[in-house]
Amino acid sequence: MWRSCRAGARAVAAHGWGRVPPMVLCSVSPQDLAVPNAGWSTAMREQYQCLLRRAADGSWRRIPSYRRGLDYLPEVLQMAVGTGTGLGMGPRLFLRNVDVEGAGFEYAIFLHTSGHRTQCLCQLGPYLEGHHGFAHGGAIAALIDTTVGTCALGVAKMSVMTAKLSINYLAPVPVGAVVVADSRMERHEGRKIFLSCRVRDTKQDTLYAEATALFIQDTKPPPAACP
Amino acid sequence: MWRSCRAGARAVAAHGWGRVPPMVLCSVSPQDLAVPNAGWSTAMREQYQCLLRRAADGSWRRIPSYRRGLDYLPEVLQMAVGTGTGLGMGPRLFLRNVDVEGAGFEYAIFLHTSGHRTQCLCQLGPYLEGHHGFAHGGAIAALIDTTVGTCALGVAKMSVMTAKLSINYLAPVPVGAVVVADSRMERHEGRKIFLSCRVRDTKQDTLYAEATALFIQDTKPPPAACP
Repeated sequence: MWRSCRAGARAVAAHGWGRVPPMVLCSVSPQDLAVPNAGWSTAMREQYQCLLRRAADGSWRRIPSYRRGLDYLPEVLQMAVGTGTGLGMGPRLFLRNVDVEGAGFEYAIFLHTSGHRTQCLCQLGPYLEGHHGFAHGGAIAALIDTTVGTCALGVAKMSVMTAKLSINYLAPVPVGAVVVADSRMERHEGRKIFLSCRVRDTKQDTLYAEATALFIQDTKPPPAACP
Repeated sequence: MWRSCRAGARAVAAHGWGRVPPMVLCSVSPQDLAVPNAGWSTAMREQYQCLLRRAADGSWRRIPSYRRGLDYLPEVLQMAVGTGTGLGMGPRLFLRNVDVEGAGFEYAIFLHTSGHRTQCLCQLGPYLEGHHGFAHGGAIAALIDTTVGTCALGVAKMSVMTAKLSINYLAPVPVGAVVVADSRMERHEGRKIFLSCRVRDTKQDTLYAEATALFIQDTKPPPAACP
């Protein structure tokens, strides 16, 4: 159920992923978290550099990632919708809710220029444990939902919602592992976007999970106040 | 992919859920987090009390929940397997990785005495956001995986692994909402345990999601060193 805000989608449609100036997204630039930090392992850094080199020819683009989806909105809209939830604390994007670098999800998503394929490089930290030593099934589901959701957004160029998500868990993922979730659009019928996703280790020796998903794109145009 | 450790499963098989003395599970009693705290909303507290009253006749049992699965192990086993991951920090159970009370998952699972049904009362905090104001699809998946996994454990009385998880997202869940995930075993064929789950609001007016799952139970007996 990963869904970008409409403002973000419209900005992306107008400028392309990775080409949206921060001031368009938000007058106070949020921190892009899809970049190396002290919690990234050597394997994560090396694979990240590899994906950056591949992207150098323009065929792929790294997508910035923020602490919450609302950070994509311009400040005027942030004020309009509010930043709290009545629970006394500001919201955070689920996959970015752990402050300790390297403890939770560390990831960077790359979108193919076709807009129909995404690859999410992800290091699954020790705060994502299920069974001892392995990532929780819900953490793998969250990673897949985010990867296919970003791909669906690339297709729809507007807000999307997860309607169905089916996952086959084929091998347990060790905590600390670096994986690549590779998602593709399979077909696009009206508002329905069908996608697939596979999660492998970086050497592609192990297929950890495979999934299919259906996303529904929004019918409403972006708000008039959006950039 | 929620899977209890074998030691915990064996203790449960011997003593029953909620009847395992903390010293059997761990020589240094971990904190049970499936109890009210300052982050629980009034709706969460009221529904929790309702479920406790229903459990008073012994038909349901509240299951304690800890910061990590390893807390179920006795200390000698904790030392044997280690508490770190080589990343310089101790692991945490995915659904218990947020320290701020009320910010992440606040939940308590109740197991029916038949062992074939679980209900998870859950408040979805603001750190679980996907689209603005709504819980991330991955958070809903994590809640469902945990609920059905606990039910599978109640059936198998030993470690279980998620093999398949299919979710239909029917309505977005507002951040801060209190929901009940209701899981049942549908059938049990050898090592395969088929389950279903529905996520509703506490008044059962809204069906947010429905899911099916397949879990595989472990073939190995609990380690000899286990209690």
